[in-house]
Amino acid sequence: MRLVTLPVVFTALLATPTTVLALWPIPKTLQTGSTPLKLSSNFKININIPHAPSDLHAAVQRTITHLKTDNLQRLVKDRGAADLKAIHQHTTHTLSSLTLSLSGSHTSAAAAVTSIAEEAVKPIGTRSEGYTVHVPADGSPATITANSTLGLFRGLTTFEQLWYTSAGGQVYTLESPVEITDFPSVPDGVDLGKPYRGLMLDTSRNFFPVKDIKRTLDAMSMAKINTLHWHATDSQSFPLQIPGFTEISAMGAYGPDMVFTPSDIKDIVSYAGERGIDVVVEIDTPGHTAIISESHPEHIACLQAVPWSDFANEPPAGQLRLASPATANFTADLLSAAAKLFASSLFSTGGDELNSNCYVHDAETQKMLNATGRTLEQALDAFTQTTHGALRKLGKTPVVWEEMVLDHNVTLSNDTVVMVWISSMNAAAVAKKNFRIVHAPSDFFYLDCGAGEWIGADPTGNSWCDPFKTWQKSYTFDPLANISAANAHLVLGGEQLLWAEQSSPANLDSIVWPRAASSAEVFWTGATLPDGSPRAINGAAGALPRLHDLRYRMVQRGINAIPLQPHWCAVRPGVCDLTA
Amino acid sequence: MRLVTLPVVFTALLATPTTVLALWPIPKTLQTGSTPLKLSSNFKININIPHAPSDLHAAVQRTITHLKTDNLQRLVKDRGAADLKAIHQHTTHTLSSLTLSLSGSHTSAAAAVTSIAEEAVKPIGTRSEGYTVHVPADGSPATITANSTLGLFRGLTTFEQLWYTSAGGQVYTLESPVEITDFPSVPDGVDLGKPYRGLMLDTSRNFFPVKDIKRTLDAMSMAKINTLHWHATDSQSFPLQIPGFTEISAMGAYGPDMVFTPSDIKDIVSYAGERGIDVVVEIDTPGHTAIISESHPEHIACLQAVPWSDFANEPPAGQLRLASPATANFTADLLSAAAKLFASSLFSTGGDELNSNCYVHDAETQKMLNATGRTLEQALDAFTQTTHGALRKLGKTPVVWEEMVLDHNVTLSNDTVVMVWISSMNAAAVAKKNFRIVHAPSDFFYLDCGAGEWIGADPTGNSWCDPFKTWQKSYTFDPLANISAANAHLVLGGEQLLWAEQSSPANLDSIVWPRAASSAEVFWTGATLPDGSPRAINGAAGALPRLHDLRYRMVQRGINAIPLQPHWCAVRPGVCDLTA
Repeated sequence: MRLVTLPVVFTALLATPTTVLALWPIPKTLQTGSTPLKLSSNFKININIPHAPSDLHAAVQRTITHLKTDNLQRLVKDRGAADLKAIHQHTTHTLSSLTLSLSGSHTSAAAAVTSIAEEAVKPIGTRSEGYTVHVPADGSPATITANSTLGLFRGLTTFEQLWYTSAGGQVYTLESPVEITDFPSVPDGVDLGKPYRGLMLDTSRNFFPVKDIKRTLDAMSMAKINTLHWHATDSQSFPLQIPGFTEISAMGAYGPDMVFTPSDIKDIVSYAGERGIDVVVEIDTPGHTAIISESHPEHIACLQAVPWSDFANEPPAGQLRLASPATANFTADLLSAAAKLFASSLFSTGGDELNSNCYVHDAETQKMLNATGRTLEQALDAFTQTTHGALRKLGKTPVVWEEMVLDHNVTLSNDTVVMVWISSMNAAAVAKKNFRIVHAPSDFFYLDCGAGEWIGADPTGNSWCDPFKTWQKSYTFDPLANISAANAHLVLGGEQLLWAEQSSPANLDSIVWPRAASSAEVFWTGATLPDGSPRAINGAAGALPRLHDLRYRMVQRGINAIPLQPHWCAVRPGVCDLTA
Repeated sequence: MRLVTLPVVFTALLATPTTVLALWPIPKTLQTGSTPLKLSSNFKININIPHAPSDLHAAVQRTITHLKTDNLQRLVKDRGAADLKAIHQHTTHTLSSLTLSLSGSHTSAAAAVTSIAEEAVKPIGTRSEGYTVHVPADGSPATITANSTLGLFRGLTTFEQLWYTSAGGQVYTLESPVEITDFPSVPDGVDLGKPYRGLMLDTSRNFFPVKDIKRTLDAMSMAKINTLHWHATDSQSFPLQIPGFTEISAMGAYGPDMVFTPSDIKDIVSYAGERGIDVVVEIDTPGHTAIISESHPEHIACLQAVPWSDFANEPPAGQLRLASPATANFTADLLSAAAKLFASSLFSTGGDELNSNCYVHDAETQKMLNATGRTLEQALDAFTQTTHGALRKLGKTPVVWEEMVLDHNVTLSNDTVVMVWISSMNAAAVAKKNFRIVHAPSDFFYLDCGAGEWIGADPTGNSWCDPFKTWQKSYTFDPLANISAANAHLVLGGEQLLWAEQSSPANLDSIVWPRAASSAEVFWTGATLPDGSPRAINGAAGALPRLHDLRYRMVQRGINAIPLQPHWCAVRPGVCDLTA
């Protein structure tokens, strides 16, 4: 990251902003002035990069569009009417252009410039998302500089958030000059090409069409979220159409119109990549697989055993016969074929909520175990070596849920990424075993909690993970809590998650946004805010005006993000705080 | 209600339905056969009523459209594919027409037939919503008979729910003949022209455009909900443009595009009426009025006093200066002008959460009280006599929140309708005071509960009324719990409520539907199901397949109702129950 020498004449406004700059996540350093600046209606963006990739050109075009169509009035009581006097002064300068450049060694190797999509799928630790934005007060060209096209794209996203629109359609800021040097820095405070900032979407319990996933990717990119963890399949449906295994989705998808074809998948991966998002797919195994029985009953144990609650955490029961070499090979081949559809270096094999009682009652499994003299745990280890081995051959790094290292005796390579979900308290135990961690704890990040129990005959039940996880709760998450300094490097980042038992396109936007932006800021900035203060202590109150801005901008872009408060409060920052 | 003599050859299927008839609310009596019947592609509805009102013709046209466009496949694993064999038999009869008739004395007074909209706004206790539906198995014309156009409309709604559509587009039932005699019967088990079955929408905390309200009215009518309780104004915004008082909305609405003009109101009232829905508006007084200060500061005490939590239950503080005769007259004139915009016989003056500390600290109020020698309670009584008196002059019956009878010493006529909201336990106390009751308890019916605290600086807070009120919880509500038999007649019905601090069009459908249909069935059928079994005991499990059907049909009609379960469960009725 090239460090920018900051002009000292600007006033640092982070502590007590005079107006709200609608930046989310908050940049590492931000300096603003107090000079009004208009954006020209002929505003242009120049890409000062030979052979710039087409997705950078496309991103620039989207920024031009957003600047024209966001039409976001400032969130103050008069919606910026009083700003008009300042911005319509004849002395007010107009910004006519922005120039994008690559910095450092990259400028001399122009032919080797990689696309945003290529940068987005590089292994964690090797990406460069940092950038600088400079907007002079005198109308001379603004600049964004970065080490990569991905960094330039992040800078464009920030640039879009600098502007409001007056009732008359003038795009403006009151706070030029603007100087931003920004990079994600969890957990180390320096730019190591981390972290993982994710959103998980479950497309098995209920189906989500491609257009809804694309709209979600648009919203994710607004908050600089860089990973879609796609929990694509589960016991209820198998929507992924995988070459060589098309019978599984033909019989296990919810319907012929509720399938992701290879072409759909390519579309999603490419759409995500252009927006700086890596798509990490999950085919959960060996549990959460009952629906495979529709096409391959021979591979599934305890299918729809009753009562289901004795054999699975939710209906229907049914798990892969992991002790069977035929099943292990089938699974390895399936995962390999699926992995080839995705550009990411990561692939999740799941591994959560394996029900041992299922296998106790499965005669086939018992026969296999008896024949080989193996325990179930030994069989699970062998199964995992087979499936992970197949993925390794394709250059993929496996991702697993926490039970695979905390509850089972499975030999895993230490570059395996472990998702901690049962409790945030379990991250420390995973770190002690020297595995890399993605924080996905139900007690902070499960977006479905608090919506009631969905089991039909349970009229008085609440969510198992009650209460609802507010954005304030997730925002105060500390990525390094209970993790020793020596193990801090194991923390890759984290994600918020939507399990879809009670979700569909009907409530996708409203259950996710703007809440899921809270972890995006946590994993961009770390445990402390840029001014050094700990986020956990009243950080949410300071963040609220910016999160309102992000939400209102999302609504302007057609994303059905919910209001966090009455509009009365949104246009009077701080006034509705409990202590106000 | 004319009682129909039921043919005894049909099999009563309510206890153990062979397939799910997607009726919601469940009819009082339902008898079905097992003969497949197709609907003709030229299906016609004849109105056998001279001078039938235009809104009945419009309702018939909507039914024709729904039958063609609902395109709802049956919620079984194969979505009805196996039904094709039965419905494509050459012996299967085709239904070509349905005839609507008024029964009894109404047939001889055809010229006096009132419209659906006129019937919908009649005082509670004088409406007739009952109807019979007869669908013969042999293809001869079906009939709907009722005492009123409103009853015919309810019958049409039921008729629409009898049909599924095959993958090939054939509309069919497997269960002709169908014989239904139905009427709402809370609390008495007989048709007394009750009950009130409502949905409350708050358009003050956040704004909802007319199109969203109309979509909500469409959804309400699908569940035979007959009242929109429109909590139109509050302390945060005043969107109602009231003739003679336009300055209030001009300065107190969220913006010029977030106003309901008289024309909008007429449009909403008329759209609702045509769908059998009475619009009961609420202008909450004397609390919940701070925003009136924007145009009339002289009428508001303790405006934005800090900390707001000492002066109001939510920000901003500010209440009408009820002790001032000028303010009482202003309020009476305002309510009168508003009441003239609505056809309903009911008008809510609110009366909840009055903060006495506000008046203790208001010098103007103290001066008035001292000058007149009145207590605050005496002043509140006088204020209420003035406002209610003005509404009485217009023929309106006042509606108030429970505090007005339980916490204050206000003289109220006993026909005043009292909404019980703080706790379901408070209904008994209201009944003991001999007031009519609408159940609106937060512990059963508040749709916003469980979505987290929205006060900015309260990062660990949950909803004050946690947890989320599941449809199973609201479905088990007993309208007569703790009410003596002698007081049962006081129970008018009930409603589910959406307070909109964290709602907007973004989540309107998803937070309301299909949950709000649960109370619609409670207040159509009463504490017992039609077979006599108590709803509270496992009633929800039996209702789930029907509620799924309603939800899927809503989605087909463009209402973003959320899934209650994974689709896997929806197409396998009962299999996901906890005991299955």
